[in-house]
Amino acid sequence: MRPYPARQVLRCELAWLPPGRVAADVTIVTDGATIVEVSEGGPAPAGAQQLHGLVLPGLANTHSHAFHRALRGRTHAAGSGQGSFWTWRDQMYDVASRLDPDRYLTLARAVYAEMALAGITSVGEFHYLHHAPAGRPYDDPNAMGHALVDAAHDAGLHISLLDTCYLTGGIGQPLDGVQRRFGDGDAQRWASRVEALRGPYDGRADVVIGAALHSVRAVPVEQMPTVVAWAANAAAPLHAHVSEQTAENDACLSAYGVTPTRLLRDRGALGPRTTAVHATHLTAQDISLLGESWTSACFCPTTERDLADGVGPAVALRDAGARLTLGSDSHAVIDLFEEARAVELDTRLVTGRRGHFQVAELLDAATAAGHDRLGFSNAGRLEIGCRADLVAVRLDSVRTSGPAQAAGSNAAAETVVFAATAADVTDVISAGRHIVEGGRHALGDVGLLLRNAIQQLR
Amino acid sequence: MRPYPARQVLRCELAWLPPGRVAADVTIVTDGATIVEVSEGGPAPAGAQQLHGLVLPGLANTHSHAFHRALRGRTHAAGSGQGSFWTWRDQMYDVASRLDPDRYLTLARAVYAEMALAGITSVGEFHYLHHAPAGRPYDDPNAMGHALVDAAHDAGLHISLLDTCYLTGGIGQPLDGVQRRFGDGDAQRWASRVEALRGPYDGRADVVIGAALHSVRAVPVEQMPTVVAWAANAAAPLHAHVSEQTAENDACLSAYGVTPTRLLRDRGALGPRTTAVHATHLTAQDISLLGESWTSACFCPTTERDLADGVGPAVALRDAGARLTLGSDSHAVIDLFEEARAVELDTRLVTGRRGHFQVAELLDAATAAGHDRLGFSNAGRLEIGCRADLVAVRLDSVRTSGPAQAAGSNAAAETVVFAATAADVTDVISAGRHIVEGGRHALGDVGLLLRNAIQQLR
Repeated sequence: MRPYPARQVLRCELAWLPPGRVAADVTIVTDGATIVEVSEGGPAPAGAQQLHGLVLPGLANTHSHAFHRALRGRTHAAGSGQGSFWTWRDQMYDVASRLDPDRYLTLARAVYAEMALAGITSVGEFHYLHHAPAGRPYDDPNAMGHALVDAAHDAGLHISLLDTCYLTGGIGQPLDGVQRRFGDGDAQRWASRVEALRGPYDGRADVVIGAALHSVRAVPVEQMPTVVAWAANAAAPLHAHVSEQTAENDACLSAYGVTPTRLLRDRGALGPRTTAVHATHLTAQDISLLGESWTSACFCPTTERDLADGVGPAVALRDAGARLTLGSDSHAVIDLFEEARAVELDTRLVTGRRGHFQVAELLDAATAAGHDRLGFSNAGRLEIGCRADLVAVRLDSVRTSGPAQAAGSNAAAETVVFAATAADVTDVISAGRHIVEGGRHALGDVGLLLRNAIQQLR
Repeated sequence: MRPYPARQVLRCELAWLPPGRVAADVTIVTDGATIVEVSEGGPAPAGAQQLHGLVLPGLANTHSHAFHRALRGRTHAAGSGQGSFWTWRDQMYDVASRLDPDRYLTLARAVYAEMALAGITSVGEFHYLHHAPAGRPYDDPNAMGHALVDAAHDAGLHISLLDTCYLTGGIGQPLDGVQRRFGDGDAQRWASRVEALRGPYDGRADVVIGAALHSVRAVPVEQMPTVVAWAANAAAPLHAHVSEQTAENDACLSAYGVTPTRLLRDRGALGPRTTAVHATHLTAQDISLLGESWTSACFCPTTERDLADGVGPAVALRDAGARLTLGSDSHAVIDLFEEARAVELDTRLVTGRRGHFQVAELLDAATAAGHDRLGFSNAGRLEIGCRADLVAVRLDSVRTSGPAQAAGSNAAAETVVFAATAADVTDVISAGRHIVEGGRHALGDVGLLLRNAIQQLR
């Protein structure tokens, strides 16, 4: 990876500027990792580095389980009509059982490099694979977490390590099998371990240590306040899987008499630092609770389609005030353009109508909203004072080619959201560092890195 | 385009062989446009041309409206919540109004080249833009059809020109505005024109002239038998839009007291040469009628998602005996891997379960079934006597990379169907001609061809 350059002058053919418009001939000057000047029009400054197509701010992948990438293209063979989220989970656990810190570093580095190639500059890693087999702590109990931070650094990404409290295998059920690697015993021991994890990253602009409640299935209700309090004290992001499956709702209602969202609300877990991941099967009251508390909802549409979760109430959440973010989650696909358009398109499938979201709303979910909910509040916008994350998306591929793009029209943004794929990302600058150039990552052949990393798990 | 080579020896790292398995080290020998030898294992013959990744038979795009490509990324801006299939159609008509034979040749050539890059070797063009403005015939009344055939030839594709009878703007309503370009007055004049279209292509292995009933909206019931009889006499494919929208069902029930499928059945339009396009909103009886008559159902999932049509009953149709085929239709996306996996994945969204289709079923829809329903019954299979259409899909991109592919496992096919995109197609051989090499089409920069072709319509 190249070092941070002191100063750069970048010239964008087209750029997506706040609060949501396509501008032409945009000059962006950076000072190290930060944007210090944005101007429009006029001739290109001498020596400016040209970026073609539409330049977006860096994308934020708000929900990742890096190791799930090893399952891609390996979970569909059953074909028996009996497959479900739960049979998929068995295969996922098998991969989890094969990881150690070295292997996880190798795998996550390749996965994060794949993300970089897709224009992602911040990742939220929902991390629960903490311990060695049978739940024995590593010599450094945070060895797995450090591996993930190192992987992100190597790939040029910013990481919000959402260290996940995972204590039970279901409501009232002990951890079983590979799940024992996830558990800390209780929330207090979880908090002590996470507190130790924070220290080494104090002052690191590229690392946030956040918290997660895996789900109402995995954290007993009396343990939740400890996690919530830790996140509040640290002013850290707090994420939780919420109502991805109806079975989770049924179990929660049966055990506690309330929905997962209501349970989290009653323990103080909702709020403007909180992200409810999936938020697929919600009641009208759930939607109100999320909206009025300014909790965000992280949709992972390609995973939710793959796992047959269903289509979440994106329109109602938006209308209630919940800001939407996006995640590639299981990494069946790593392409935030796919995730963004699927919020709109999957809503069309279940409503029979078009035109639910503005392109600017979908791009906010893919950029500023996501970075914000990962604890990177100064990223995801091309404006002075923000992190110098720029993503150039070509408009001349067979997918994106069309009429010439006029300034003053948002057609280029519509094309990117509805027609581009990750393969159309040509250049990625992450905090001033050029990590992808001409579609090639600084680490080299990422396909080969992925192959080697996954091969070692067989 | 290169001429047909007399004889070629191709060596496939992996190949998808009938009836549906991945084989390693496959040697395929062609004689002009035909496969004359398929063998497995052993050393590569001296001088063999190596194809990497998984080699599939050529893909069939069973439902295309070539000119819709000009709308890509231009129909989502309304964002008012009021959008529908019908407002989209207004924009589509605007593009239709700007075409003439020269412009259509230029546009369709570029669109078909984009298809070639995605591994498509046969296209079914559902063609209704027949006449000059106001419905005046061109000097050659088939000038538009000839332009489409020429475009396919230039791009290296085989075309089934499904010449479409389009007589009314709705049941009992005259053609209006640009629709007047679609109409022949009555089915007899449609048949005379299509009969004249056939002559020049007699003996051309790359061209089929087929028939289409646009829909029950556009062909009065008393006119249908003439079209059905023409197709029967010619032993030609017969396609029809069926129940894409509930409004069509409502109008049909109101006018005729039966569903569109039943109406078509009663006029003799169903059968093993017939394709019901979309087949989205069907009754149980409709599904039985399609299945028992061996009518195929052409699903166009990316278009049906874009246009908010809904998710069709793919499982029930398959179970009833209707063979599934795939189309990119409006070309919001041209990627048959996307279409194939969406048949499974969209079914997951509306059922909450995984595992409805075998990978082999989805690949059959994308290959042999599609070619067959376009009238190319000897294509879409890598076996002796079939057309020499081969498509190499790389397994080492960031999307497809994973563990080494073992022979005897269908994991490589699963990877291609569920993880590859059109961007992973490296080589396409169409009837022996190498039309795509290393991801590049013989016509050159297809993005530029598309841009120029669409620009001329502004």
